[in-house]
Amino acid sequence: MDDRPAEQFYCQQVLSLLADFSQFGRLENGGITRLAGSAEDKLARDYLCSWFERNGFDIRIDQIGNIFGLIALSQDKTDQNFFCGSHLDSQPNGGRFDGALGVACACATGLFVRDAVRSGQIEPAYQTYVVACWTGEEGARFQPSLLGSSTFSGAILPDEALSIRDGEGTTLGQVLGKIGYCGSASVPQPTHYFELHVEQGTKLQDAFCPVGLVENCWGASKFTVEITGRPDHTGPTPMNIRRDAMLAASHLIVRINDLPKELSSTLHSSVGRIEVAPNSPNTVADRVRLWVEVRSDDEAALSDAQDDIGSALTEIAAMTGCSLRIIRTDKRDAIEFDKDSLIKVGSALQNAGMHYRKLSTIAGHDAVAMQSICPSTLMFVPSKDGISHSPEEFTSGEDIAAGFKGMLHAVSSLISVQDDVLPAEVVNA
Amino acid sequence: MDDRPAEQFYCQQVLSLLADFSQFGRLENGGITRLAGSAEDKLARDYLCSWFERNGFDIRIDQIGNIFGLIALSQDKTDQNFFCGSHLDSQPNGGRFDGALGVACACATGLFVRDAVRSGQIEPAYQTYVVACWTGEEGARFQPSLLGSSTFSGAILPDEALSIRDGEGTTLGQVLGKIGYCGSASVPQPTHYFELHVEQGTKLQDAFCPVGLVENCWGASKFTVEITGRPDHTGPTPMNIRRDAMLAASHLIVRINDLPKELSSTLHSSVGRIEVAPNSPNTVADRVRLWVEVRSDDEAALSDAQDDIGSALTEIAAMTGCSLRIIRTDKRDAIEFDKDSLIKVGSALQNAGMHYRKLSTIAGHDAVAMQSICPSTLMFVPSKDGISHSPEEFTSGEDIAAGFKGMLHAVSSLISVQDDVLPAEVVNA
Repeated sequence: MDDRPAEQFYCQQVLSLLADFSQFGRLENGGITRLAGSAEDKLARDYLCSWFERNGFDIRIDQIGNIFGLIALSQDKTDQNFFCGSHLDSQPNGGRFDGALGVACACATGLFVRDAVRSGQIEPAYQTYVVACWTGEEGARFQPSLLGSSTFSGAILPDEALSIRDGEGTTLGQVLGKIGYCGSASVPQPTHYFELHVEQGTKLQDAFCPVGLVENCWGASKFTVEITGRPDHTGPTPMNIRRDAMLAASHLIVRINDLPKELSSTLHSSVGRIEVAPNSPNTVADRVRLWVEVRSDDEAALSDAQDDIGSALTEIAAMTGCSLRIIRTDKRDAIEFDKDSLIKVGSALQNAGMHYRKLSTIAGHDAVAMQSICPSTLMFVPSKDGISHSPEEFTSGEDIAAGFKGMLHAVSSLISVQDDVLPAEVVNA
Repeated sequence: MDDRPAEQFYCQQVLSLLADFSQFGRLENGGITRLAGSAEDKLARDYLCSWFERNGFDIRIDQIGNIFGLIALSQDKTDQNFFCGSHLDSQPNGGRFDGALGVACACATGLFVRDAVRSGQIEPAYQTYVVACWTGEEGARFQPSLLGSSTFSGAILPDEALSIRDGEGTTLGQVLGKIGYCGSASVPQPTHYFELHVEQGTKLQDAFCPVGLVENCWGASKFTVEITGRPDHTGPTPMNIRRDAMLAASHLIVRINDLPKELSSTLHSSVGRIEVAPNSPNTVADRVRLWVEVRSDDEAALSDAQDDIGSALTEIAAMTGCSLRIIRTDKRDAIEFDKDSLIKVGSALQNAGMHYRKLSTIAGHDAVAMQSICPSTLMFVPSKDGISHSPEEFTSGEDIAAGFKGMLHAVSSLISVQDDVLPAEVVNA
């Protein structure tokens, strides 16, 4: 796509929406904090809904707070619905591109598709184009992550999802009620899902490549570990009778961090969250919770990691006098994205003269949840130095423009009745 | 002291006051949470003041919120003031004896001394008897510990103390203003300080001994360590480029816990408090603060520990890519309590036929701060299995009665003009 006015209009919509979303929860350091269901999330959601209204999208909100913006494409293609989306919630002190860029691109692509269908440039294979903005993708405030899309796809029951509590003990249902996003609308079933997201890695940057096509997603095991010791005075209590839950947690964190070295080069492990009680300088901690993640493309490595963590709990219990147990496990299997769509999109990009790379994703995205119910496509654009979940997360305007151009080619190809990819001039018009 | 009605009256006051204090901040598990300056602390303070009023004590509140209850003993002994006290704040999920027992005993001893002076049984060497209830002894909400007594003794400037912030960023000054305990009263200067406290160790229990006389207090070094890493996505970020502040903290906690094994059997070390940001399951933590304590009776061991921690910071920085630095250090030197008073009290107990043991204290107490400005005496009573800063903290009514009897003998001896100890029948009357 070159710099002609028509293309510039849709890309301008992306940049403008992204800039506007970035105002909600903005931090002085350039990052954002827009936790699922927060006041900032409400502002971003309200803004999205007002954009849908201004642009003639039909708004639907389901019971888990997912927001959908619908455009009719064709009366003939009953029950064929092309979904395109991402999420607006962020990590605390997170970046402004993760999720929001995908929502902005889905909106602008909706305008493009509607215009291209109206003008006859695209003959649609779908009844409806649907922008999806999923609730609680990040798993920062409410666990597990991919909450809205997993509920929509049926992996989690709505009542179960709504009763999940944040660190303060407030349920997702209460939070959605408070911000006015507990809906009851019926939503068409998707027959294809497309998502654009920042890479959160350096493969595209290193290869000077504007877009990546994601072939598969690593599996992940996420555990919550509860450690119980005994509260004691940190001064007089003899060292050898202490049952220090913070010490036990520290041993476990070190051990978990060592798993990739011991088990597999394609294993990532982390402990990102800790809760400690009483958390007083003068009292030995007696209660700790840790949020543990291990991720791999290799199911055997994930299984080995789980076994090793089990052994570690036993050994550390013996060493520290604390009890350690896993109180929650979320398992996300490794998946592959729809192969036919990847071939189709690859051809479209090639015909348009665009370079692309095939990639894996290690992070989960809503497209992972959607692939379980319909063919799904995940496209990456570069993110600077792979830094994400950070105020330093950055994708340049140029990279966004190039990636969005790739998305228009991809969606045009996927959404058309034609089997072959569209000629480049369709989206270059 | 035997079971005659007069003695029973004063001991009943102790038990009744302790039971009443235990209502403020009471937890279902039998413990209390009564943090300095909290609503629960205000209730306990208000109750103490109403008790002072009912019993004819003159109330003074100084600018740091210390509460004093004064009783005139003699017009002749200008500027000779006998202080007796402890604290009413507690650890979070702490015990109901730590501090509160000392305040209750100081109050009841005040009644005893006044009655004994009025009836001519004691000829006082002091102008005034002063019950002192010190602000923020625990160091749980506001650091350092011994805050009220250290400010009163001049080790900390009042303005400095009032500007100390809790974990929420609220200053002690704001908190005291809110609960109405920012006073401006002038308070007499102490010429002796006496404190009764639970042992928080097992030496008295093991020796079946009702009271302990504390000869000295271990020194303590308390550090706040700030660790800075980089926020990153816990999924895709390659393990070898992460700068994980939680991992660095874990290495440091393990290392600090090992110090006693490496350096000295009379060294205790701990990390009781941690703050983590962003503390999200899916983001590598980039900011951690740790509250570190090392305590010893051996200044060389404390110094070695400090050196070892310094080396650890450098090594862990190299290993994890994080920066680690000490942002606050509080040093409390090892001290000895006034020897003459110990001899005098020892003789009084011996004459009364009471067993006692000489002890060290590892925990700091307000008497440690007071010893820097006047001869001070610290007396321990047994605490079950040495458990403290815990809902399981316990001293039986029998042990309290026996300890309080020892306190009456001790204070009678210290407060009288007579050089020799009083005959046992004075306090047995």
